[in-house]
Amino acid sequence: MTRPANLEDRFALSDMAARELANEFGTPLYVVDETHLRHRIRKYIEAFRSAYAVSELSFASKANSTLAILAIAYDEGCVIDVASEGELEAALRAGVPANRCHFHGNNKRVEEIARAVEVGVGQIVVDSFEEIDRLALFRDSLPPLIIRLAPGVDPKTHAKISTGQADTKFGFNISDGSAERAVVRLIELGVAPIGFHCHVGSQLLDPEAQRSGGFLIAEFARQMHERHHLDIRYLNVGGGLGVRYTEEDQPTELGEYNRMIVEAILEGLGPLLRPTLGQEPGRSLVAESGVTLYSVGAVKQVAARTYVSVDGGLSDNPRPALYGSVYPVRHIATKPREVESESKFRIAGKHCESDMLFDDVSLPRDVQADDLIQVLCTGAYNASMASNYNRYPRPKTVLIRSNGEMQIIQRSETWDEMFSRETVPNDLRTTIEVGS
Amino acid sequence: MTRPANLEDRFALSDMAARELANEFGTPLYVVDETHLRHRIRKYIEAFRSAYAVSELSFASKANSTLAILAIAYDEGCVIDVASEGELEAALRAGVPANRCHFHGNNKRVEEIARAVEVGVGQIVVDSFEEIDRLALFRDSLPPLIIRLAPGVDPKTHAKISTGQADTKFGFNISDGSAERAVVRLIELGVAPIGFHCHVGSQLLDPEAQRSGGFLIAEFARQMHERHHLDIRYLNVGGGLGVRYTEEDQPTELGEYNRMIVEAILEGLGPLLRPTLGQEPGRSLVAESGVTLYSVGAVKQVAARTYVSVDGGLSDNPRPALYGSVYPVRHIATKPREVESESKFRIAGKHCESDMLFDDVSLPRDVQADDLIQVLCTGAYNASMASNYNRYPRPKTVLIRSNGEMQIIQRSETWDEMFSRETVPNDLRTTIEVGS
Repeated sequence: MTRPANLEDRFALSDMAARELANEFGTPLYVVDETHLRHRIRKYIEAFRSAYAVSELSFASKANSTLAILAIAYDEGCVIDVASEGELEAALRAGVPANRCHFHGNNKRVEEIARAVEVGVGQIVVDSFEEIDRLALFRDSLPPLIIRLAPGVDPKTHAKISTGQADTKFGFNISDGSAERAVVRLIELGVAPIGFHCHVGSQLLDPEAQRSGGFLIAEFARQMHERHHLDIRYLNVGGGLGVRYTEEDQPTELGEYNRMIVEAILEGLGPLLRPTLGQEPGRSLVAESGVTLYSVGAVKQVAARTYVSVDGGLSDNPRPALYGSVYPVRHIATKPREVESESKFRIAGKHCESDMLFDDVSLPRDVQADDLIQVLCTGAYNASMASNYNRYPRPKTVLIRSNGEMQIIQRSETWDEMFSRETVPNDLRTTIEVGS
Repeated sequence: MTRPANLEDRFALSDMAARELANEFGTPLYVVDETHLRHRIRKYIEAFRSAYAVSELSFASKANSTLAILAIAYDEGCVIDVASEGELEAALRAGVPANRCHFHGNNKRVEEIARAVEVGVGQIVVDSFEEIDRLALFRDSLPPLIIRLAPGVDPKTHAKISTGQADTKFGFNISDGSAERAVVRLIELGVAPIGFHCHVGSQLLDPEAQRSGGFLIAEFARQMHERHHLDIRYLNVGGGLGVRYTEEDQPTELGEYNRMIVEAILEGLGPLLRPTLGQEPGRSLVAESGVTLYSVGAVKQVAARTYVSVDGGLSDNPRPALYGSVYPVRHIATKPREVESESKFRIAGKHCESDMLFDDVSLPRDVQADDLIQVLCTGAYNASMASNYNRYPRPKTVLIRSNGEMQIIQRSETWDEMFSRETVPNDLRTTIEVGS
């Protein structure tokens, strides 16, 4: 019932399906469509493999580390990119074998490295000289190491992105010699890296930045092969392909995108090296497969505009407040009614601040309490960034299975769970505790 | 050992105390000082009472709803301002009697209202006509009602703040007649409001905006008394007093601040009305009593600057990313060492994005891994807005008791708790689950 007419579209619930889901599970509600997600991952893997046979797609779990989502990504053949001990734990609990996890992060604690070594992750992506010292403590039992590179300024690339590449907390700078020093240091320790990694930015609509990054890290890999006889077995140009948050966001088609990136990498590598190539998308695999459903609670006209207050906000989708992000928003009347002409509204969240979610949104003039609002493209960086601000339980996530079944894959907190981490010292406890 | 030299200062740990706390409890770590917090609340209550005898201070729990903090605020005599069912639950679990809770929010669900009525909150602050319809369902058992007002544009006030007042999702507009219609509607329902509320903004360093808001809602209260014989028993001008995030942030002294606000309200009320006056600060009561401790993990020089990576970030303090907020930052060498001259650094968090916490921070040139970073003024909107982004457990909070004891009042999540809300459908579970 909820199949999108075309799997190439962003996933959206039909009005009827949205009403059914809201009735059965309540709002706010995250919904992810399994068919849509699997289709997207397959398409990316196929496009990558068509461009380069020995390729490996990682799923950047920071985008959505809900266990069932990780299980699907793994089931489709992805490696799981984890950037903390917690994300590693998520992958393991989702049933992903440790050796199919790549361990990232700009500031890994010794305990995190110890855990990654203990369970046997597939790769550790080395980010700083301090980290090399920490890795040295485990030199006899380390998994393959990858060095994260900051490829630096490149005239082929947009100035703003280039600056971002050179001026970053992540990785080793190629141009100032840090990257080569890291290679030499790891060789001296007897744990020579097997390859390199970079990530140049997010929500990029064309492949130019990744092409530049890919070319530069490939060229660097070739140099390290020549100068230090480094066996280059793996190169990863990160993720970053954009999604269709707005009508203007039209990312390059996947086949073309992959061909162009691989072309740049092969140019940098030269004719002698043929490592496994990796990419690490997150958002572009899962964002468009998810929607969020809200209920309207109040509609209030003031002089400047009309506010539509919904039952979610900053706590379940912090991206509008964090980055000024824009999302596609759809209105669903509680019961089918005559179509009204549309007007512009500001959709506000329920939190005790302005909590503006979406501005200048076209909705029917008669939008009213109990209508539903469906927000597309919320499969990434919503559930994973959610908070309990104002003590709201985080929304549940329903997975629409490929067979049409609805399964709750992440439920809301109970009150007991919400407060389980807390202790009121006895002398501060003035009255009898009231249970939930 | 950790008493600030002067309780009027922002609370800060001595280097020795910071090292001890980091050793015993780990980092990142929220720390709140009970003596400092109690002193601050007492000062505010005394300043308010000196300005107006029949006054009542509320603590805006959204700023920090850690149960022990709520218990302290209540113990000092505060009413607790709750803006959701969860914040009400927090207050009740902290031992606050329901009738000492005021129930706020721009979009209260029927279920939330039902719960507030059931437990017997002290006030419900009415925010919209839709909400009046919902309240009507409980008309025989409602607690005293307060109407939230949007006082609107006022020439006495900064233009930007005035716009904010008129153009808001919160409350009923006075100037367009909505507010009076709300009064009439409640009178018709037999649940006449006992007073009014407004809140004009946050982190305000002088009382001008609150004076304007207070004058306008008081004048409106007088008009409603005259026109509708409304018995005005309560007026609340909200919170909003700023704190010392930077050296430039110098809020008006509390005595002066309270005198000026009360003066404006009394002018608006005229000679016949003498309701109880309320204020609802949050940040200004608790922000300066809290600090956050981080450990440095890596120091990385790139062409443009030097990055200091710490073991916290966006997940435990989203305010720099959300609002560009600036905080006072102090460096603590792991072991006492020779003082180096200072340089400017960018402090970055551990999350998989730029995650810039604090820029242009002066730290000793030799800042290095395992040094500590102490961030002042983090008692508000840090713990309450924290997330599990990148699957990091939220930091624990240690309360430094008035007797010097350290007590954990909020611990970190265990892995089992982190994943307790999740279910992987059986057919997606491809390998044996690995426990923590």
